[in-house]
Amino acid sequence: MAAPPFPLPAPMRRALDLARAAGEAGEVPIGAVVTKDGAILGEGQNRNRRDNDPTAHAEIVAMRAAAAALGDFRLTGCDIWVTLEPCPMCAGAISHARIARLYYAVSDPKGGAIEQGPRLFTQPQCLHRPEVYGGLAEAEASALLRDFFAVRR
Amino acid sequence: MAAPPFPLPAPMRRALDLARAAGEAGEVPIGAVVTKDGAILGEGQNRNRRDNDPTAHAEIVAMRAAAAALGDFRLTGCDIWVTLEPCPMCAGAISHARIARLYYAVSDPKGGAIEQGPRLFTQPQCLHRPEVYGGLAEAEASALLRDFFAVRR
Repeated sequence: MAAPPFPLPAPMRRALDLARAAGEAGEVPIGAVVTKDGAILGEGQNRNRRDNDPTAHAEIVAMRAAAAALGDFRLTGCDIWVTLEPCPMCAGAISHARIARLYYAVSDPKGGAIEQGPRLFTQPQCLHRPEVYGGLAEAEASALLRDFFAVRR
Repeated sequence: MAAPPFPLPAPMRRALDLARAAGEAGEVPIGAVVTKDGAILGEGQNRNRRDNDPTAHAEIVAMRAAAAALGDFRLTGCDIWVTLEPCPMCAGAISHARIARLYYAVSDPKGGAIEQGPRLFTQPQCLHRPEVYGGLAEAEASALLRDFFAVRR
């Protein structure tokens, strides 16, 4: 798919750097950044193995950091930038946190919960739906994941 | 609905105590316990407000504690006992953690993701499905929630 017709926003560049760092640490290379009014409030990269934590996906780590920084369990008015379409766990957390906008680099046909599978934000039960913008950096984010798994197969 | 024809298992009694403690602390009264071979590995109660953490549902807190205790990001062979049917975030985390059996006290028509809404464990994408046993303590768990919200409306 063609690249979007604008320079990649700085928070997504940072999320891609975090994804790369996760891969270098032996974790699935996914990164996430939470911003408010353009400033970074929290960052995350996958840390499942390093932290012995089944919930330590990049989005969860970034949202927990941002909420701690804000001193609020809701991230009202905040945006999240993530290198892969969120899974059901992370999509649910994004809704609980009242994130305003979700940006992701590439969709995930195997595990994504936004534009496939349970399509969580379209469920009638869903209490808060962010605006969603996908496909911001498909080539770069999918190359990171492909290279990571190629070495391990 | 009639009570199940057996005494309430000890981990669910403990989860109900944790739910009650959460309510007394001003949090939505939900509790959870992770066990392995009958022993408690991790406990949790809702802590969103106390911890400024949008992800701090009882199940997430209990699974993070259990995984830290085990030193493993997967809770293979572990069971989780929770007082309310898990939401999409927690159901996703239960799957990621490879929990063997999910027991819950009462279903949640508004926010549950197991037997309603996205029915996450029936999605073709779902990589790990625990055995599920619901309705273990409907009267007690729903009274806790009803009393909590009655005071606040």
